[in-house]
Parts: sequence; C-alpha cells; structure tokens
Amino acid sequence: MASAPYARRALASTALLVASTVMGPAAALSGTERETSRGRNVILLVGDGMGDSEITLARNYTVGAGGRLHMDSFPMTGAYTTYSVDSDGRPNYVTDSAASATAWATGHKTVNDRISKTGDTDRAVPTILELARQDGLATGSVTTAELTDATPAALTSHVTDRSCQGPADMERCPTDTRAAGGTGSIAEQTISHHVDVLLGGGKQRFDQTITQGPGRGTTVLERARQQGYRVVMDVRSLDSVRPGRPVLGLFAPEELPVAWTGKPATVGGTTSQRCVTDRNHSDGIPSLEALTRKAIALLDARARQKSAGKGFFLQVEGASIDKQNHDADPCGQIGETVAFDQAVKAAREYAAEHPDTLVITTADHGHSSQIVPMAAKPAGLSATLVTDEGAPMKVSYATHAGEEGQEHSGVQVRIAAEGPEAHRVLGTTDQTQLFTTLRIALNLQ
Amino acid sequence: MASAPYARRALASTALLVASTVMGPAAALSGTERETSRGRNVILLVGDGMGDSEITLARNYTVGAGGRLHMDSFPMTGAYTTYSVDSDGRPNYVTDSAASATAWATGHKTVNDRISKTGDTDRAVPTILELARQDGLATGSVTTAELTDATPAALTSHVTDRSCQGPADMERCPTDTRAAGGTGSIAEQTISHHVDVLLGGGKQRFDQTITQGPGRGTTVLERARQQGYRVVMDVRSLDSVRPGRPVLGLFAPEELPVAWTGKPATVGGTTSQRCVTDRNHSDGIPSLEALTRKAIALLDARARQKSAGKGFFLQVEGASIDKQNHDADPCGQIGETVAFDQAVKAAREYAAEHPDTLVITTADHGHSSQIVPMAAKPAGLSATLVTDEGAPMKVSYATHAGEEGQEHSGVQVRIAAEGPEAHRVLGTTDQTQLFTTLRIALNLQ
Repeated sequence: MASAPYARRALASTALLVASTVMGPAAALSGTERETSRGRNVILLVGDGMGDSEITLARNYTVGAGGRLHMDSFPMTGAYTTYSVDSDGRPNYVTDSAASATAWATGHKTVNDRISKTGDTDRAVPTILELARQDGLATGSVTTAELTDATPAALTSHVTDRSCQGPADMERCPTDTRAAGGTGSIAEQTISHHVDVLLGGGKQRFDQTITQGPGRGTTVLERARQQGYRVVMDVRSLDSVRPGRPVLGLFAPEELPVAWTGKPATVGGTTSQRCVTDRNHSDGIPSLEALTRKAIALLDARARQKSAGKGFFLQVEGASIDKQNHDADPCGQIGETVAFDQAVKAAREYAAEHPDTLVITTADHGHSSQIVPMAAKPAGLSATLVTDEGAPMKVSYATHAGEEGQEHSGVQVRIAAEGPEAHRVLGTTDQTQLFTTLRIALNLQ
Repeated sequence: MASAPYARRALASTALLVASTVMGPAAALSGTERETSRGRNVILLVGDGMGDSEITLARNYTVGAGGRLHMDSFPMTGAYTTYSVDSDGRPNYVTDSAASATAWATGHKTVNDRISKTGDTDRAVPTILELARQDGLATGSVTTAELTDATPAALTSHVTDRSCQGPADMERCPTDTRAAGGTGSIAEQTISHHVDVLLGGGKQRFDQTITQGPGRGTTVLERARQQGYRVVMDVRSLDSVRPGRPVLGLFAPEELPVAWTGKPATVGGTTSQRCVTDRNHSDGIPSLEALTRKAIALLDARARQKSAGKGFFLQVEGASIDKQNHDADPCGQIGETVAFDQAVKAAREYAAEHPDTLVITTADHGHSSQIVPMAAKPAGLSATLVTDEGAPMKVSYATHAGEEGQEHSGVQVRIAAEGPEAHRVLGTTDQTQLFTTLRIALNLQ
C-alpha cells in the first residue's frame, strides 16, 4: 500500500517518537550532560487503595464527570500490576499495602504483611529512601496514617510483620527484636534513619517505651529527641519549623482525621445524600496538602544545605482512601481522595518551578467501591450520593459480606508522572519497576 | 536549587519531550510532509465491558500476573471517561454500550440505549465510518455480537433505541420507521451503507422481511445481495472471499459462540476450577482473530482498489466479554478477553508491516468482576479459578443481586495505542475525544 519513500518516512518518524519515549530527552544529550540532566528530586504520591474506580468516584462527585482532577492531567500515564507472592514465590493476586509498598520501595515482591524483607528468607532488602540517604539526598515521608503504618514503614524499616509498629507490638516479629539481634520495631527503626522530614499520625507508637537495646527505658519519642529530631504535634509548631534539624511531626495518636463525612453504605442502600465537607481544623491538625507543602519546602532547603548537586526524595501517602473504602464510607473515601489530589497539586506547583523534579502519582492496590447504575440492586452495601453537578451516583461495596469490612481488589492500577524519566510509567509495568524508575531518576547506583 | 544553565537545559528537554508527545513526530516535518505522514489506516479494537479488572483477570489466568498480553504492550496508554447523559444533558455515570459507542463513533454524548443520535433532540449525527466512507476510505466492522448490536450499530445506523435491530423490531423507534420518513432498522441502515466488510453474528435480524420503504417484501439479506453484497455464513466461504464486492458475513443467528466455558459464579462461591478452553470449531464459525485477519486483508486490498492515497477504517469488537460478565461467568469472560487479545495481535502484526496504521485498543465501559482475596466472603456471586501458573484466584460479581444479571460499572477504562497520532490517548481523556483522534488519524475533515 505505502510507497517506499512514504514508508521510510513513517518508519523514521516512528523511530524518533519511540526514541524520545523510551530514552527521554536525555538521549539527545552527550554523556556528561546526561549525568547532570538526571532528575534531582522525586515526589512520589501514593493513594492507598486508589484504583481507577476510586479516582472516577472522586472526579464525578467534585469536578464532575467531564471535569479533571489535578492527578488527571499528568502527561505520562500507564497502569501497573500489584500482585504479591506467597512464601513459595507463587503469585497472590491481591496484595496488601505492606507487600505493595515493599515492591516499589525495594524492587522485591514479598508476602502480604511483610515490610521490606523478602518473602521466602525474610531477609532485609535496601529501600529507595535508604539508598537516597546514603547518597546524600534529603529524604522525607508524609502520611495521613500512622508513620509506622505499612506504606511509610516500607521506606524506613524492615520487619517480618506490619503489626510490629512500636516496641510493645513485637509479637509477630521474633527475629526483629533487639534481644534477638534485630533492629527493633518500625518506630525505632524509623527514627534511627535520621530521615529529614517525617510527618503523619501514630504518636501512640512513639510513646511506647523501648525495652531492649539502644535507648532502653526511654520512649521512642524521647529517643528521637536525643537523636536530634525536632518533634512537633500541631500545625502551629509545624509552621515554625525551619530547615536544619530533622523533624518528626506526630499530629494524632492514631491516623489523622478524615476530611469529609457522610452516611456509610448499607444493605439496600442509603437515601440520597450530600457529603459533609467542612472539617473543623481547630484541632490543630494540618491537611495532607499543608503537610506536603511544608515537607517540600523543608526538603528543598535541606537538600541545598546537605550536599551540592543532590536533591530530595519525598513520599506522600493518602492513606485513608483505603481505610474509608474498608469501612464502605463513600463520603469519607471521596474526601480523602480529594485531599490527596490537593497534595498532588502542591507537588505539581513545585515541579512547575523546578523541572528537575519527577512527580509520580499512583496507588498501591485497587479496592472495593464500584459505580453502578441507579437501577442496580447491589448484593452488598450501597449508598447514593448527589454530586456537585447535581446528578445521583450509586456506589456499591460488596467484596465482603461479614462485619470485618471490605476487601482490596487485585485490579491493575494507574500510574502517572511528569518530569525527568516520566516516560517510564507508560504502558503496562509492574510495581517493582517503579523502584527502578525512582533509582534512575535520583541517579542512585 | 538548580543552577541557571541546568534549569535551562532541563526546560529545553522538557519542551522537546512535550512537543514530541503533544504534536507527534509530524511536528518535525514540513507542512506538505505532514499531510502525507498522517495515518492512513485505523484499526480500533473495542473490548465490550473490558475494564482494567477484566484485563487483569485474563492476564492472571493465562500468561500470569507477571506476564503480558498483546494488548498490554502498546507504547501509548491512558484512561478515558465513559459517562453518558440524560435527556437534560446531566451526566449518567454508568453508560451502556449504545451511548458509549455513540460517543466515540460520533463525538457526541447521548442517552443510554440510543444509537448515534443526540440525547436531547434525537437527531442523527455523522459517524466516523460514514465520514471515512464519504472520503473514499475502505471501511469495515467486525464483532462477536450481532452486527446490529449496539457497538457495530453505532457506526452504521441512527436509531432512537438499540432494540430496533431488524424490520420487525421497531417498536421503540417510531420516528425511525420508513413509514414515518425515517431510515429504518439497524439492519436495513447497515446494508445501505455499502460498508466493504461486515462480519459477525445476528443472521436472525437480516432474515426479517422489510415491510416498509425500499426493498419492501424482501428480507434484509435478499436486499443486501441485490445491493451487491457477497453473503457468507461459514469459515470456508469466508476464506474464499476475494477483494472487490462488499462482503456480509453472518456466522450465527444471534451472537457467536464463546471460546471458553466453566462454572458460573454462585452464592458462596464455586469449588476451584480450571476453564474448558478447547471450543470445537467444527461448527464452521471463525474466531474473532480469523475474522480480524480476513477483514484486514480485504480492507488493505480494497483500499488500494478504491482510491489512491486513501486507507481504511476497521472496528473490531470483542462483545461477549460484556455478556459473560453480565452472566457472572468468569471462564466465559476470560476466554472472550483472550480471544479479543488474539485479534489485537493480528492488528499489531499488520501495523508492524504498515507503520501508517494507527491501532487503538480500549473498552466501552467497566463491568462487574473483581479479583478479591481468597479469604474474602463476597456478598454476591463468586467463583474460584486455578490459573495457568497454578495459583488460586477468587472472582466476585455483586453489582446486582437479582436474576437479571450483573451490571456495568462507571469506572474510567484503559485506552492504548500505537502508530500515527497514538500520543493522543495519553493522560485522562473522554470517549468523545477518541472520535477526534480517529478523524485526525484518517485525515478527515
């Protein structure tokens, strides 16, 4: 069909596009330039349990089905697979947040509930945050969950089971205790990393007393202060933090409060409802967006203080998208997705001024909520919302019938990016490849 | 942070990447070259009800969670929104296949059940196939459903309600009847379009007798023959078709048989099962892959016969992914997804030899099936499969509790592409934008 010259031109065009897609713009630069043109900063934003269904729900409710969230407008988009493994290495098609975070934080698949240790031999493997710190980058981690919860834990600790959050929680991690020659609980390991910025919930874990090894007899919080951390517990104290010392912000005993509330889904469905979106911030607890903006400002300054030519790595987790989905609470879930999207906005505003920044947004696994026709009579729990654009939207939660709450799903999830190496998220990839992308973007060995 | 020369270089690199992403390689060519470098052929493959969950299910079962389907490896990937509207233009968050196909086939959102007519005024709007034919391109449509079912219908007809498939089915389309001055049923309109290649099921509709207007007293099939169609009804006759006359292939009274079978999901779950994957092809009914290969060969030749410098437009629908999902039959659903993936393979093999071909794969809406943890007790129907890699996989269907079958979901769905203009699927788009992409790729006004 095609004439020969035409075919040659088409092939050349395709080759050019493929080259720019696969290699990135650095392909056009010389060797020396390539090194310095590598991304210096990475901001990774993880919506826990934020599958495409959860994204669509939040979009429909707020900006409308034809509107666009901040996370929608990344130029490079793809999907990645999230399965975990069993101890024999066979796939487990539905991951939990621990195995999922281990996959992108270390490049290793592991068993559910395990934190940055291998699935078969229970061996610790280096995390992207550890590698970044060793290379002289500034590092940070922000979450709406406890700082010892699975996702942030996978960056700053290695334990057999995610439940081993504080010194008093070590029952399922016998080989990780200090007495057994291990590195202790997630909280203890986290502060020993001297991460520059740690902001989230979970003060209860840091209030526990260390009973074995270094710091024995003190609380984890006291130990953090001894090690040079500035500890803050409300938005005003956080505002006053200036770059220099590492900062540990603990803004709630457990997870941070959710942004929105409403009637959870019920058998037979709720009456039509609007979500209550005006959380009272007089409790002094900052929003995820505020935490993200402060973390970025501190890390930007800290990176310049620490080492010439090095940037920062920041992870931001919107954790309660997952937790509200487990509770079949559509308003809670959508509010947390919107709060996460505001954090994405903050990251993208920074990247717009600092094009040497790779911003990635993704999820750790899919979840339960589905948008179903108004005429549907779902088999499990359901709720009807009236969206901001005035249309009814029915949400079904039916992955589990019991009292224990809804379940994760095994669906592939979205990954989107902008900035250096962003093209690596195109197509269908696996979570473990995100580790490689982060390492390359940060120019780590 | 960044030194000025570094920042300038990074900006320039970003601009280059953005240019190649947004403009495509054509941006580097002159005006004249640009015209001729436009895509000449488009093969659009639509997996009906093939959301990301359905893709993940098929991947896990066949090539394994870490394996890749043919549809997985497109270089350009994104998601698009699929909502329809009500007659006042308000969003309906869960589309049906008729409104969905109307959106990508015409660029217009419409109400559920309507075929390529507007939602408010019930006015016919031109379809991409009509525009392609008018411009002298060869055109084709292939489906595993009836050729008068919603997706193929939206390319070749305009009716108020999707049920108006044959002359005897016009109850819900009073203004579309010939007596009322309309253009008749979907079957009648379809053959009047002189589409070069029409392959699928639904012979029962074409066996109906035309009772009004042109062809009155003959069946639609007789009318097709009168208008020059070669009619074929089994794989051997199809094989013998040579390019020249338009071809109408009707291989079953209703939809084509499914590729795989197994136990449908039940309340409380099935026992662990393997799917039965060896459909007996002695019935003479070709696979979707065989239909696709034949359609491509005929259209390739036909385009050269018809008009110098013009290509073809082909739509291929894997229809029963949706239908088996409605029936909560995971083996049926996965088998149809795999059959669709083989059609994708056929299209990509052609495109590899003809880089002037845009290949797009997408879905028309999400659906019910979810992969849930083995320990989950879903509220609705569920089934357990043992995948080819030897791991158990539990599938839940719970969007509807009654006897009427499972429901569509409103989740955004994947769109992936390679070839000219493929970058247009990146990011988050809407179905109506696919119409624009097709029009630009085919260089239509």
